Amino acid sequence: MMALEFGEDIVVIDAGLLFPEEDMPGVDLGIPDITYLVENRDRLRAILITHGHEDHIGALPFVLPELGVPVYASRLAHGLISVKLRERGLLRDARLNVVEPHAPFRLGCFRIEFFRVCHSIPDAMGIAVTTPIGTVIHTGDFKIDHTPADGHSMDLAAIARLADDGALLLCSDSTYAEMKGYTESEQVVGETLDRVIADAPGRVMVATFASLISRMQQVIDAAVRHDRKVTVVGRSMSNNVKMATKMGYLKAPPNTIVSMNEARRLPHERVIIMATGSQGEPTSALVRIANGAHRDVEVAPGDTVVISASPIPGNEKVVAKTIDNLFRQGANVIYSRIATVHVHGHASQEELKTMISLVNPRFFVPIHGERRHLVAHAALAQSMGMPKENTFVLEDGDVLEISAEYAGVVDKVTAGHIFVDGRTLWDMDSSVFAERRRLARQGVVVIAATLSESTGDALIAPEIVSYGFVELDESQELFEKTSKKVLTILEEEGAATLRLEAVRARVRDSISKFLHKETGRRPTVLTVIEQV
Amino acid sequence: MMALEFGEDIVVIDAGLLFPEEDMPGVDLGIPDITYLVENRDRLRAILITHGHEDHIGALPFVLPELGVPVYASRLAHGLISVKLRERGLLRDARLNVVEPHAPFRLGCFRIEFFRVCHSIPDAMGIAVTTPIGTVIHTGDFKIDHTPADGHSMDLAAIARLADDGALLLCSDSTYAEMKGYTESEQVVGETLDRVIADAPGRVMVATFASLISRMQQVIDAAVRHDRKVTVVGRSMSNNVKMATKMGYLKAPPNTIVSMNEARRLPHERVIIMATGSQGEPTSALVRIANGAHRDVEVAPGDTVVISASPIPGNEKVVAKTIDNLFRQGANVIYSRIATVHVHGHASQEELKTMISLVNPRFFVPIHGERRHLVAHAALAQSMGMPKENTFVLEDGDVLEISAEYAGVVDKVTAGHIFVDGRTLWDMDSSVFAERRRLARQGVVVIAATLSESTGDALIAPEIVSYGFVELDESQELFEKTSKKVLTILEEEGAATLRLEAVRARVRDSISKFLHKETGRRPTVLTVIEQV
Repeated sequence: MMALEFGEDIVVIDAGLLFPEEDMPGVDLGIPDITYLVENRDRLRAILITHGHEDHIGALPFVLPELGVPVYASRLAHGLISVKLRERGLLRDARLNVVEPHAPFRLGCFRIEFFRVCHSIPDAMGIAVTTPIGTVIHTGDFKIDHTPADGHSMDLAAIARLADDGALLLCSDSTYAEMKGYTESEQVVGETLDRVIADAPGRVMVATFASLISRMQQVIDAAVRHDRKVTVVGRSMSNNVKMATKMGYLKAPPNTIVSMNEARRLPHERVIIMATGSQGEPTSALVRIANGAHRDVEVAPGDTVVISASPIPGNEKVVAKTIDNLFRQGANVIYSRIATVHVHGHASQEELKTMISLVNPRFFVPIHGERRHLVAHAALAQSMGMPKENTFVLEDGDVLEISAEYAGVVDKVTAGHIFVDGRTLWDMDSSVFAERRRLARQGVVVIAATLSESTGDALIAPEIVSYGFVELDESQELFEKTSKKVLTILEEEGAATLRLEAVRARVRDSISKFLHKETGRRPTVLTVIEQV
Repeated sequence: MMALEFGEDIVVIDAGLLFPEEDMPGVDLGIPDITYLVENRDRLRAILITHGHEDHIGALPFVLPELGVPVYASRLAHGLISVKLRERGLLRDARLNVVEPHAPFRLGCFRIEFFRVCHSIPDAMGIAVTTPIGTVIHTGDFKIDHTPADGHSMDLAAIARLADDGALLLCSDSTYAEMKGYTESEQVVGETLDRVIADAPGRVMVATFASLISRMQQVIDAAVRHDRKVTVVGRSMSNNVKMATKMGYLKAPPNTIVSMNEARRLPHERVIIMATGSQGEPTSALVRIANGAHRDVEVAPGDTVVISASPIPGNEKVVAKTIDNLFRQGANVIYSRIATVHVHGHASQEELKTMISLVNPRFFVPIHGERRHLVAHAALAQSMGMPKENTFVLEDGDVLEISAEYAGVVDKVTAGHIFVDGRTLWDMDSSVFAERRRLARQGVVVIAATLSESTGDALIAPEIVSYGFVELDESQELFEKTSKKVLTILEEEGAATLRLEAVRARVRDSISKFLHKETGRRPTVLTVIEQV
């Protein structure tokens, strides 16, 4: 999410989700902290959307109710946003607008023009925002593919025209700024898939992202060429296939896409199964198939499985485990490390340089990606002659002030992420995450005792309950010892003379030490000690 | 760990640790399940060690006390094993032997000969075990580097001689069997390091594995050439530098390696700091430096940090975060994605083919690596003409029976891993791990109530305690409501007439539902309900 402002006008570009990381267990997702936008709502004109991926549209259901501004998006992104808002009963109040490329419109003092870019979803756009002092080019996520699967290659000349002999500012996708050379064209993937499907002796299963419509088109094209039918497994992919077919983004001759029941009546060598699960998601079709736990599909001799995706950072191990398990089930597995069955959707260094050269900006802000990617992209721009003082590697919340001649970071506003867990919103440094990490390492032991208010003695033997700490057979003897130890502590500490809070603390500390001595482990100890 | 047996004799090759995975929170490490070896201890002649990495020697302190057999290892591996056993008071009873390459010896019916291989630690060996029906070649971990940093390249002709016109069985390293071509030589890394150090305007910090002695040698060589001193940060790396220098594996002119205090008195452009932390280990020197939390070292303008390692699978995200933070501190960071500052220690496909061709085995068992690597290596052997029925992709515990003419899997014995947590040993499917994963996601809520034995009524308001579930400010009102809800449940369920176990279950179920309705989250609910 980026805000551009000039005088009395603000426009925001994208409103995406952050997928949670391992150090925030239990979190469903992260959304942008929009404190600044709420405070300046009167100046906010619209949210502009570059494309329909979750990390660009996923926060709309959370921020639109608070901001209530119009949203501008390409046709497919508009469709995906509508589905999302309808699910939450927010569609009626939303002000959604479909934007075609090169159909400029005004928002306050800004002139907005979308332009087509190539990416791993159809209808991806960059955005040119012309301000009174010059034009800002925001690339969105992009790569330069001259032979994309959907035939919509980028109009480089049009981008140069938009920049009009030098933009004021370029904000460009840095995700793959570490990669030398060019990102391979989707055509290469199409050729590989075609060959794999032509050569496969039996069924072919292709797993990919549910939103990677161009990949599905390549699979359907190969199916038609090699006289196979395609069946789609998994709810999100089925929905997307239906939506994309209806909107014209996916083209299949009649009777090419069939139901699982129909597919089951065909010989294996006439079937392709498309499924989700390319990221090793535990509940996905592919992972169930890999574990031999899918209701409809079991790996049979001669099956070929194509993982037409590469692991998103953090998913490497679960994806690898899924591949291992598919091999164990007897499938021939083809994946991105051993064949070009996937290309990603982001520009490598030579494409990034082409964009910088086309736009020829005075100022440069690398966007999208982690710090190291932004740094690599900034270095790339500087290697082309961009002055270092005109290049800005920003952190969330940095305010970059730009005039026609000079730019600099002048302020920092509240930004970052808010984490959604059930119906609660937490900020990043909530103590809850540290507590959960601790529980995960060593489990929990609860000490419960009921004391007599008059004497301070325990009325019955203290109860010990644990979770994630011991197995049942180990627990009985250990917990009897622990219960006795609690009684000893209560006596020694003279529980009758202490305040209840102090008794709880002493029991907690002493039992923590006792359990560490007994087991070598350090569970979280909770005490519930009361007087009656 | 692999066992070779013939008649009345068994020899074991390697005894390594398994590093725990995320789905086993709290586990310190995994060790091999040696049930089968314990049952057959009378036939076990020795454990042979290929090299000194933890995943090949780390389980010795756990298995030697039970097995009590001699250990044979190269000189450096012997040194590392001795340190490990001494730390645990096990050295006195151990029967350790140093083996030189090509100095054959007998164990029962076996003739054993070690041969030198290249790998990311000095003194790495493959092992030839000649049995009455033919020779088994076990490569250990290896790559073929004709210009290694320590000058000890592999004697390919000697390996061919050992196989003697065709070995019975080849067991070969599969870790990088997916990689086409050749693994680059360490010479390339040496050249890159030399250039980086020559060009660096200020201090250089090099982070690598504590056991990667050849890399340290390259850094020291570059330091000498460019008139810099080297200081070592971090206990494990300091110890290894001392040990390797003493044993002659690391060579540095006098006064090249200096203390941190001496280094601090030198101008920055005369200093190299070597440190651990290349895997993003939270307590390592590099991560502390990246977080601005190191006692002695703070990033200064002009500093260059070289991450001379690539992330071990599973560490990708923490390593990336460390790089990002070093950039934030202002360092110029050079890492394996942007420059050849690291090569790994395993053979790629062309080297693997060379090994198969040299050894020309009748039977082939790919070893080391996950299932997909073993499958890729088996396919590679088959692409060279090895019959499919002579190639065996094995699982832990599979018993492969081999005669001079025929081989096949005939049995399965107890094998796999045991997980060490404090002083407890758990097997993989212990319920404790599932409980911990559940705690990590949603935290825990404890419901404690003390009931009157006679009436079944609660003597005082039920107490609610939680951890990893809510923040303090949210908890008070919620827990008051929860406590009242418990009272209602006790009344409605007629607690007086039920057995205590049934009361606990009903409270647990009802409060789980209640908390989910209130918060959208599903914590683990533990109940401690007693009667007095």
